[in-house]
Amino acid sequence: MSSAPDNAVRDHVTAHATAFLADLVDWLRIPSVSADPGRAEDVRRSAEWLAGRLRATGFPVAEVWSTPGLPAVFAEWPSADPDAPTVLVYGHHDVQPADRSDGWFGEPFEPTERDGRLYARGAADDKGQVWMHTLGLRAHLAATGRTAPAVHVKLLIEGEEESGSPHFPALLRAHADRLACDAVLVSDTGMWDEDTPTVCTGMRGLTDCQIDLFGPAQDIHSGSFGGAVPNPATEAARLAAALHDDRRRVAVPGFYDGVVELTERERALFAELPFDQERWLRTAHSSAALGEEGYTVLERVWARPTAEVNGVSGGYQGPGGKTIVPARAQLKLSFRLVAGQDADHVQRAVREWVAARLPDGIRHEITFWGATRPCLTPLDHPALQSVVRAMSRAFDDRPVRFTREGGSGPAADLRDVLDAPVLFLGISVPSDGWHAPNEKVELGLLLKGAEAVAHLWDDLPRHWQPARD
Amino acid sequence: MSSAPDNAVRDHVTAHATAFLADLVDWLRIPSVSADPGRAEDVRRSAEWLAGRLRATGFPVAEVWSTPGLPAVFAEWPSADPDAPTVLVYGHHDVQPADRSDGWFGEPFEPTERDGRLYARGAADDKGQVWMHTLGLRAHLAATGRTAPAVHVKLLIEGEEESGSPHFPALLRAHADRLACDAVLVSDTGMWDEDTPTVCTGMRGLTDCQIDLFGPAQDIHSGSFGGAVPNPATEAARLAAALHDDRRRVAVPGFYDGVVELTERERALFAELPFDQERWLRTAHSSAALGEEGYTVLERVWARPTAEVNGVSGGYQGPGGKTIVPARAQLKLSFRLVAGQDADHVQRAVREWVAARLPDGIRHEITFWGATRPCLTPLDHPALQSVVRAMSRAFDDRPVRFTREGGSGPAADLRDVLDAPVLFLGISVPSDGWHAPNEKVELGLLLKGAEAVAHLWDDLPRHWQPARD
Repeated sequence: MSSAPDNAVRDHVTAHATAFLADLVDWLRIPSVSADPGRAEDVRRSAEWLAGRLRATGFPVAEVWSTPGLPAVFAEWPSADPDAPTVLVYGHHDVQPADRSDGWFGEPFEPTERDGRLYARGAADDKGQVWMHTLGLRAHLAATGRTAPAVHVKLLIEGEEESGSPHFPALLRAHADRLACDAVLVSDTGMWDEDTPTVCTGMRGLTDCQIDLFGPAQDIHSGSFGGAVPNPATEAARLAAALHDDRRRVAVPGFYDGVVELTERERALFAELPFDQERWLRTAHSSAALGEEGYTVLERVWARPTAEVNGVSGGYQGPGGKTIVPARAQLKLSFRLVAGQDADHVQRAVREWVAARLPDGIRHEITFWGATRPCLTPLDHPALQSVVRAMSRAFDDRPVRFTREGGSGPAADLRDVLDAPVLFLGISVPSDGWHAPNEKVELGLLLKGAEAVAHLWDDLPRHWQPARD
Repeated sequence: MSSAPDNAVRDHVTAHATAFLADLVDWLRIPSVSADPGRAEDVRRSAEWLAGRLRATGFPVAEVWSTPGLPAVFAEWPSADPDAPTVLVYGHHDVQPADRSDGWFGEPFEPTERDGRLYARGAADDKGQVWMHTLGLRAHLAATGRTAPAVHVKLLIEGEEESGSPHFPALLRAHADRLACDAVLVSDTGMWDEDTPTVCTGMRGLTDCQIDLFGPAQDIHSGSFGGAVPNPATEAARLAAALHDDRRRVAVPGFYDGVVELTERERALFAELPFDQERWLRTAHSSAALGEEGYTVLERVWARPTAEVNGVSGGYQGPGGKTIVPARAQLKLSFRLVAGQDADHVQRAVREWVAARLPDGIRHEITFWGATRPCLTPLDHPALQSVVRAMSRAFDDRPVRFTREGGSGPAADLRDVLDAPVLFLGISVPSDGWHAPNEKVELGLLLKGAEAVAHLWDDLPRHWQPARD
């Protein structure tokens, strides 16, 4: 079997772009804002719309799955080949809140096409990138002359992603059998920029905690007692300050245990990206970069574990001064984890480090809020290589670069519960303005994304035979 | 002229104790709570009561001095000897709030005598110790057969001390001519304990500030940017942590410049006090002591300069976690100063230290709220020696020990504006419960205080001839 000619995929995508776009506009008109209880009915309507259109597209199975919160959509289109790999596509149909008065030039739920861009809340995050899969799958079938895809395709489109996915892990566990797959394909990310097709290879993990420090039983007078008893605000500061050494490495003993270091090849690949520090600083709303010595900005946010003070409080916070030794103080810390780190081990290391550093007279409590494991798919993983080839073909054989995500998201839950490698295929670009006014998607990139999907379903089973029990 | 026989002083005090006490009870019935706007009329009534009774006691001058807030009382009884030293007695007639439901066994403004103690709000802080001066002055006159005291006695009894003395410095400046004196005598402190007559020799100074740190222009995502831009909460913690070195000395360069070190004699005198660390820790509501290495607890709180974190805030402080790099953080710091330190120099040192420590990308602002200079009267000052002799005689020639106050108060304003040494004469004891329910004064000590006043007015002009222009 030869691979589908690229022009057949492109021809199909081009021929059906107008209808594809009209459907997307329809969907974007539904204000499926999961954070707004008044929009719950719209989120449900969005799920019903999607399930119906997936069936119309040809998915033999397309169901609305309820949760204690807002519904997800599950769909399935098996391959004719029972031995074909199974890929579960992840996306979400809920969107961020949006109001015209936030600075939109038009109504956020009345999509506007202008200069090859479609402006609407959800255009890129994530309805556009979910809907792209329908056109991609039809293009795959058309270009290859199949009636069923070359892989078993499953879709899980969540309805609460913009609200922190509170019911998502339970949903995964409840339906683990039907969601079983050989790989997860996340289409809720993006590319480096308009001119640089990229594939994301992983996300960092996360564990975060609160440390409460207790000193005097009540606030006491700093004149009568200051300088002679331990001060929990001072000790909180000493802990937070001691998180990093002078090279801004995390100084908690054992924190780096197991860390998979960047290879020279990965560092070289990161370095190939056209990184503009001034531009990056603007997106960070910051005026200077600062981080672990010996690593670039991209290495720090994508591939290095970090410790961050998310919040600190203690003592007097009102106007003017109040000369007390406060009774208590609190730190909120988060730790980003990379492949090879074990969240339980990090939590133990932090607990031991805190206990060893506090002086007599300071009692403490640590509460960890949870842990999300990192996920990273090796560059030489055959499924990842398929994604790279698919993207490259969609972008006219341009070289594909590699990125990672510094954040932590539902991908980790998918990896953990379904025990499958996570791949990423996204065509959104930083200028798309996720969560911001005038969110848009580049229509040219959206069609290229559909082409990449078509190429992927064709390429994957040729090069990857997942190990099965 | 021989000194007045001690028994003559004691005889007068004993003979007039009942009337003295009845007057004090009258005064204590006036709920002169300066913090309660609803009690402003009571504070005014308290001032009128005092001025009237001072005139009845024999003061040729006794006036109510208004302020933009609550009134003070000024009185004056000149000596017949124009060359006699002038001493200004400081106290206050306002009291802390009190309500029976706070845990009082009786009404806080209905004085109760029980087992030689008088229970009422203000009994020790400070009405009892102010009123003590009337009996002491009359005993001085009676025992020496004078019709006017041997020193020029002035009284300034403030009405807003429990509310932070907001108008006191202006009052001092407005009336500086009439308040001119050779020494200030503060009767708003106390002794070590019931069995240990002590004289306080000084108070620490104070300067406090707020440091605002600004990082990203808004809170940013710790996954996307954490570990690669400076975090103002981390930098606030690093500043606060760097305030002290590992020996818990203040690590701001120049902070200790000019500090008058404790002499071996002073350290030996402090060490003579029956200090019980467990008991002290209970008053500090703390379970352990911690402070500058090489100094005892008393040395730390009385005679060493300190830096204290009064408050710290930044980033997320609500329930659970929030993975941000915060946009800003804030520190509230206070510095206690000892003799020899210059507040302006300390402020400059702190400003330079902060500016030098912050990384690029963190902007900062420092606001100092003000400065109170330390005051310390040398042990060999002849006026201080008079106070010591007066206390010793009142306490049947018991040895008198020395204390200091770790706090900072109106004494410093008196010293600064009036340019006179500050002495302390007080008979309150820690068990008197200042600001607490069931405040009391030991009547036996109150009468000894009156004796000490009588001895002081007699002793002082014999041993001290202040330098005059």
